[in-house]
Amino acid sequence: MTPYAELNIAELKALKEELLTRYGAFQEKKLTLDMTRGKPSLEQLDLAMDMLTGDISREYKTQSGLDCRNYGGLDGIKEAKELFARYMEVADDEIIVGDSASLKMMHDTIMGALVYGMVDSDQPWGKLPKVKFLCPSPGYDRHFSICQYLGIEMINVAMDANGPDMDSVEELVASDDAIKGMWCVPKYSNPTGITYSDEVIDRLASMQTRARDFTIFCDNAYTVHHLSDSHDSLKNLLTACKNGGNPERVFLYGSTSKISFAGAGVAMMAGSRKNIEFVLSKMQFQTIGPNKLNQLRHVLFFKTIAGIEDHMKKHAAILKPKFDAVRNVLDQELTGTGIAEWSSPNGGYFVSIDTLSGCARDVIKKAAAAGVKLTPAGATFPYGMDPDDRNIRIAPSFPSAADVHTAMELVVICIQLVSIDKLISGY
Amino acid sequence: MTPYAELNIAELKALKEELLTRYGAFQEKKLTLDMTRGKPSLEQLDLAMDMLTGDISREYKTQSGLDCRNYGGLDGIKEAKELFARYMEVADDEIIVGDSASLKMMHDTIMGALVYGMVDSDQPWGKLPKVKFLCPSPGYDRHFSICQYLGIEMINVAMDANGPDMDSVEELVASDDAIKGMWCVPKYSNPTGITYSDEVIDRLASMQTRARDFTIFCDNAYTVHHLSDSHDSLKNLLTACKNGGNPERVFLYGSTSKISFAGAGVAMMAGSRKNIEFVLSKMQFQTIGPNKLNQLRHVLFFKTIAGIEDHMKKHAAILKPKFDAVRNVLDQELTGTGIAEWSSPNGGYFVSIDTLSGCARDVIKKAAAAGVKLTPAGATFPYGMDPDDRNIRIAPSFPSAADVHTAMELVVICIQLVSIDKLISGY
Repeated sequence: MTPYAELNIAELKALKEELLTRYGAFQEKKLTLDMTRGKPSLEQLDLAMDMLTGDISREYKTQSGLDCRNYGGLDGIKEAKELFARYMEVADDEIIVGDSASLKMMHDTIMGALVYGMVDSDQPWGKLPKVKFLCPSPGYDRHFSICQYLGIEMINVAMDANGPDMDSVEELVASDDAIKGMWCVPKYSNPTGITYSDEVIDRLASMQTRARDFTIFCDNAYTVHHLSDSHDSLKNLLTACKNGGNPERVFLYGSTSKISFAGAGVAMMAGSRKNIEFVLSKMQFQTIGPNKLNQLRHVLFFKTIAGIEDHMKKHAAILKPKFDAVRNVLDQELTGTGIAEWSSPNGGYFVSIDTLSGCARDVIKKAAAAGVKLTPAGATFPYGMDPDDRNIRIAPSFPSAADVHTAMELVVICIQLVSIDKLISGY
Repeated sequence: MTPYAELNIAELKALKEELLTRYGAFQEKKLTLDMTRGKPSLEQLDLAMDMLTGDISREYKTQSGLDCRNYGGLDGIKEAKELFARYMEVADDEIIVGDSASLKMMHDTIMGALVYGMVDSDQPWGKLPKVKFLCPSPGYDRHFSICQYLGIEMINVAMDANGPDMDSVEELVASDDAIKGMWCVPKYSNPTGITYSDEVIDRLASMQTRARDFTIFCDNAYTVHHLSDSHDSLKNLLTACKNGGNPERVFLYGSTSKISFAGAGVAMMAGSRKNIEFVLSKMQFQTIGPNKLNQLRHVLFFKTIAGIEDHMKKHAAILKPKFDAVRNVLDQELTGTGIAEWSSPNGGYFVSIDTLSGCARDVIKKAAAAGVKLTPAGATFPYGMDPDDRNIRIAPSFPSAADVHTAMELVVICIQLVSIDKLISGY
């Protein structure tokens, strides 16, 4: 296809007319499709129904005879810690298994840091005049929301195919002791789908930081969430931090929200033994413990890490056609136009599209007007502000592949229309 | 029985010899009984097994069709909010239903107050030079532990048969704006078993406080936990606070830990609509939501508040003989001795014994040496310090009634022995 930038005004206007006709046809379809969030589909949830219907739903004792119906067990049942230690690639005593939302665990770690500090803090972060976090962007909106509501200043760091721009990261953390934290989704990143390179992991682990209690909040949400047999591999950040002489630098988080049930899974956090002991030393005053029956059910259902991996192949078989639909429409309609770039991830829950600067907000508005809801513009950036107004996050997991195809046909029309207006106005 | 204080030294020594023989006999039994915590027995847990084994364990959709397996629903499913609003005696929009531990909800409310304040705060509590809480004592050790680990200064307020000493409470809160909070367990109080009188509730609700964001953390842990058909009744503190012109003064907490499963129940918090809206306005950034399948299971199992009440009669039938065993042994062995007083609660999980001053620690040590573990001395007071060293908390729920009887026979021997030594040393 001819790059749109090379078309003259007449050609652009003719193309626009054609696209408007197609857009009008979509409006008449009165679609109501929602691709705003990375939500598992019903077929995916059905995969774990044996937890509710099978014999395992009736079990309540662990191998050692612990009655999961009763009190006890602050950091999760032993079997769950063992299983999810494999999953998180840490030692059995480097993990806490909790209730359903890993986001809550991340939030609580930060609240703790504000109120009583991290294990190596000189004082609680809340006593400081300012606390700043590095936010590789585009990234996960809920991470940024935590910072915003807690008054933590967010510093945008660019993402590329290997992860965050490490030159910027290193320069920032070396020079500013108010930078206490950094978010990352290191594998099949939300939304760009990239996986941090070994070099990025090593640089994160060993870089010099002005703040000695600088902490990486590593949300490994998609570690086994491959879309096919092509798997990205991620270097172990905790091991790298230990080797880099900074074992307390990172907390890892994970959950089964997109493995078992998004509304009834288990979440986990991991870190060096010293970090986990510190967290437990506080947690003992905060709660009685997590839902142990749910943890037992997960252990009995998945059994081993191989069980989790096998289960995720079934998820992939459901998700792959939806991601293919996104990619096929984008490839077919926009290749060579020069008006957009898009990701082709090997896993995760999102496709990330970058339009021409200044177009994303209008594209999302136009798609919504024809019945397709996308993640709000700017959501993938700190403060909801995409500096270039370019990024669009596509979450194709919930609708059917056919609906995803339909929705994407509309989205590419919207991208084309908004881009053409942009180009025309630039003449 | 003759009051021990009226016995002469020779009589006391003779009694001591006899008691030492009986104590020795207990040591030979090599008991290992644990009455440290208010833990449901296996028979109680079995009462709710239909949640795991029945058809309801397979359900995943609410009446309105919401799929509880998937994301969504920050404050709990509608049916759970309705059921537990009845339970907490609040309106449907004055409640949040969460995961298993109400203690975690209390903790998180206080963390929020420290970091961003309460709805009517001028500034976050964490910005103040000092924060103090009133702690009616004896009380619940885990409440006090939260204050201690967060550096909140605890002020001991005496408890009597009607609740906290309100003259002290009113004087303290009227004069010190650093007093921001107060704990209470208003019904079948832990450990004294008393229920706050209507007058206490009204005075709590309408008293003048220097701190305008003074908040009562009302842990209504035992609201339907009667031991027989003699029920205490508790005036609604939220309604009283509204009538007193202080609707935002109280947060109420409850859970099904001692109704369904201690290790897999649901917890809830309630308050004025303004308070709940404030909490939700923050909570939306903190988590995705609670385990909805577990909430659905609870709703399908109990159905109505009447269902909960019926279920609690089955609990009472199991617990009553254990409480009777405690009372019978105390009545039989210590009535008229003048060396102890004890509670005869209509509900809850504990019997509270007050010995002569300076005896509790030694009694607990002596019982432990013969195989009966009791709650550590001082645990029911702030900082683990019982100023008079008098209070012993008995938790009879977990062992069998026969074992409770045996354990109490030992406990009264220990009380007698320690009291006699105390009296002899006073001669």
